[in-house]
Amino acid sequence: MEIRVLVTGFEPFGGETINPALEVIEALSGRALDGHDSVRIFTAKIPTVFGQAIDVLEKEMEKISPSVVICIGQAGGRCHITPERVAINIDDARIPDNGGNAPVDVPVVTGGPVAYLSDLPIKRMVQAMQEAGIPATVSNSAGTFVCNHLFYGLMHLLKTKYKRIRGGFVHIPYLPSQVVQRELPAMNLSDMVHGLEICVRVAVEHALDVPLTAGKEC
Amino acid sequence: MEIRVLVTGFEPFGGETINPALEVIEALSGRALDGHDSVRIFTAKIPTVFGQAIDVLEKEMEKISPSVVICIGQAGGRCHITPERVAINIDDARIPDNGGNAPVDVPVVTGGPVAYLSDLPIKRMVQAMQEAGIPATVSNSAGTFVCNHLFYGLMHLLKTKYKRIRGGFVHIPYLPSQVVQRELPAMNLSDMVHGLEICVRVAVEHALDVPLTAGKEC
Amino acid sequence: MEIRVLVTGFEPFGGETINPALEVIEALSGRALDGHDSVRIFTAKIPTVFGQAIDVLEKEMEKISPSVVICIGQAGGRCHITPERVAINIDDARIPDNGGNAPVDVPVVTGGPVAYLSDLPIKRMVQAMQEAGIPATVSNSAGTFVCNHLFYGLMHLLKTKYKRIRGGFVHIPYLPSQVVQRELPAMNLSDMVHGLEICVRVAVEHALDVPLTAGKEC
Amino acid sequence: MEIRVLVTGFEPFGGETINPALEVIEALSGRALDGHDSVRIFTAKIPTVFGQAIDVLEKEMEKISPSVVICIGQAGGRCHITPERVAINIDDARIPDNGGNAPVDVPVVTGGPVAYLSDLPIKRMVQAMQEAGIPATVSNSAGTFVCNHLFYGLMHLLKTKYKRIRGGFVHIPYLPSQVVQRELPAMNLSDMVHGLEICVRVAVEHALDVPLTAGKEC
Repeated sequence: MEIRVLVTGFEPFGGETINPALEVIEALSGRALDGHDSVRIFTAKIPTVFGQAIDVLEKEMEKISPSVVICIGQAGGRCHITPERVAINIDDARIPDNGGNAPVDVPVVTGGPVAYLSDLPIKRMVQAMQEAGIPATVSNSAGTFVCNHLFYGLMHLLKTKYKRIRGGFVHIPYLPSQVVQRELPAMNLSDMVHGLEICVRVAVEHALDVPLTAGKEC
Repeated sequence: MEIRVLVTGFEPFGGETINPALEVIEALSGRALDGHDSVRIFTAKIPTVFGQAIDVLEKEMEKISPSVVICIGQAGGRCHITPERVAINIDDARIPDNGGNAPVDVPVVTGGPVAYLSDLPIKRMVQAMQEAGIPATVSNSAGTFVCNHLFYGLMHLLKTKYKRIRGGFVHIPYLPSQVVQRELPAMNLSDMVHGLEICVRVAVEHALDVPLTAGKEC
Repeated sequence: MEIRVLVTGFEPFGGETINPALEVIEALSGRALDGHDSVRIFTAKIPTVFGQAIDVLEKEMEKISPSVVICIGQAGGRCHITPERVAINIDDARIPDNGGNAPVDVPVVTGGPVAYLSDLPIKRMVQAMQEAGIPATVSNSAGTFVCNHLFYGLMHLLKTKYKRIRGGFVHIPYLPSQVVQRELPAMNLSDMVHGLEICVRVAVEHALDVPLTAGKEC
Repeated sequence: MEIRVLVTGFEPFGGETINPALEVIEALSGRALDGHDSVRIFTAKIPTVFGQAIDVLEKEMEKISPSVVICIGQAGGRCHITPERVAINIDDARIPDNGGNAPVDVPVVTGGPVAYLSDLPIKRMVQAMQEAGIPATVSNSAGTFVCNHLFYGLMHLLKTKYKRIRGGFVHIPYLPSQVVQRELPAMNLSDMVHGLEICVRVAVEHALDVPLTAGKEC
């Protein structure tokens, strides 16, 4: 039986002309996982627009019927690949999204819980990436823009409607080409693809996480 | 009628010999607020120990019967005073607390919700501090150590047992004396005290917040 | 006999409306040093303009006849007070100065040596500031804008024309009011003034430095 | 006629088990440059030891008779490939070198000038790397440890003894594998090798630099 994994990436936003998440999903699309012949990776491009992002994600989920959903977004300025721990029920936009919307302090889902935890095995994913030489850390905030919005929307769908699907969100750094003149950290596409391939494999292999410390004092 | 505000600070932890939060509460203790003769500030020292921190906080709340509780903690490495937006139901310690405990991926309150939002007017607090020349920003993560633990424990008490009390958490930077040989940001005690005095005043004056943008992309 | 110290500060530049160096010299102007009744601090404002900066400095030196000259400049983004070790014979402007000039790769002084070392006791100054609780570090680059230009111009004057005067340059962080909405480090004015007062005292007391390590790998 | 380029890398130091500079020179060794059949790249490993580093470099220069020498060192914490502008005549070690030496405030070459400028076309090198999508910036300080020591020693040899050879120093970031658990910037080996290949090509093609702005305010 085929195990389907849906991996999504956002359109560029905030003045950038590329989004590393799109480059990563393009590289992952249709890729076979070593030793996992039954796993097939599907990908989808998500508009960086509040509301629409979740609608497009759900349509793709309906179409593909995945077992696992991993949404990827750009975290400009971060050094590591960072699986996100928690999605919060807040939209608070510092900059407009690609549709010109900039909601402030409105819930992603009216009446939804304050937050959802990822149900990906984020500690195992970080550990496996580190063992493969890929810089990786757990993040405790996906921000309050469209990335967190999609992450919360995904988890709400998984907890209320698609209860057999597991999912979560992974932030990735800038690509080198985005920072050639800005002294900000970046990660090579091949390392990102390698890292995300590991994330997919670990997510498929492990329904449960393990308590490896990845805490932060603040 | 007297309006009582309880402001708490942690003991030093993680190898530090001082905690700026203790210095701040010492300076605030008993201080009168300009134009608010009826407001009285009480302070309490909280052990940097999982579990005990919440127990001591509740005892102080019972003793003082405050209308507002503001817990303060050190956020080493941050530049700004940062009112926290959300407490999460996770203990994940990278380093041991002052009692030698280092829980990993256990809930603060078994069966509690994934997260609580602060019910302090954090946007107004940030705005008022900025207008007074104090660097301030909303933070979307209080970490996963004793600071977040106490913040979550406080909010759980407020939502389940002390429903007339409002409260939340504010992180503050290192003091200059903590970083004389480390190139990390710091804030002068007088600026921190000024900032927290503003936080207390705004928290007393405004039960509700306003939607000022303070979002982050990640 | 009176020992005169000239301390200079730059006008605001680069879109800032204040320059912490001006605030510091205003506070230091005419100030007496504890236990040093014979020391008198003179101050001067320097235009943030290539060329003019050095001309104005020399006129002030002629007028005041100081024994020691300490030029102060803003180092936006630094955490510490940083006495500079070395001035280089290069103007390379990323942004225009206050006169609209943006020289690239031209020498400060044609035919001058590649660099001058400060002849202030920078290690002692850093040590004394740290002992007083003021964050301080030696810097190995004063940049390539008007700060380095003035520093080089000063050292060239001292080595070629005013051989009895000792001098150097100290960079200081942003003031808190400059970063209320930007998450960048800052230092309180009172700490800066305290730090610079220590620098003046140490510079007057010690003609020679001591080899305290303040190295950097890069 | 063969044009020989000597590219050197340091041994690991400061607790690291690898040095990206060694990985880069291993990849560059013997490599042909597209369109430059006459250029041959030689490489050498340099001990991270004050004194010895320069001795070994000179022996390699004698053996190989290069036209251009480019020394490479690790700049842990930097985001970009950074050709260095200036070497200063100071050893000031914060940590011991690999021979246990930690000189403080002693000259690299007694009686040598305060500093030497690189005579590589650093602006052209940065521009060419950026055009190829490689993050690159000019640096104004090579520190005060063995990297700056070797850079100064090289320039002193070039200006006093080997006047037909041109040379300079390039700092490179950590490799990803060095920061898997530390949130510090890194660069993929293939990007570093690509960047250094560009540096070699530009250094061979251009004896003179162009005044492209690469300035810093501090």
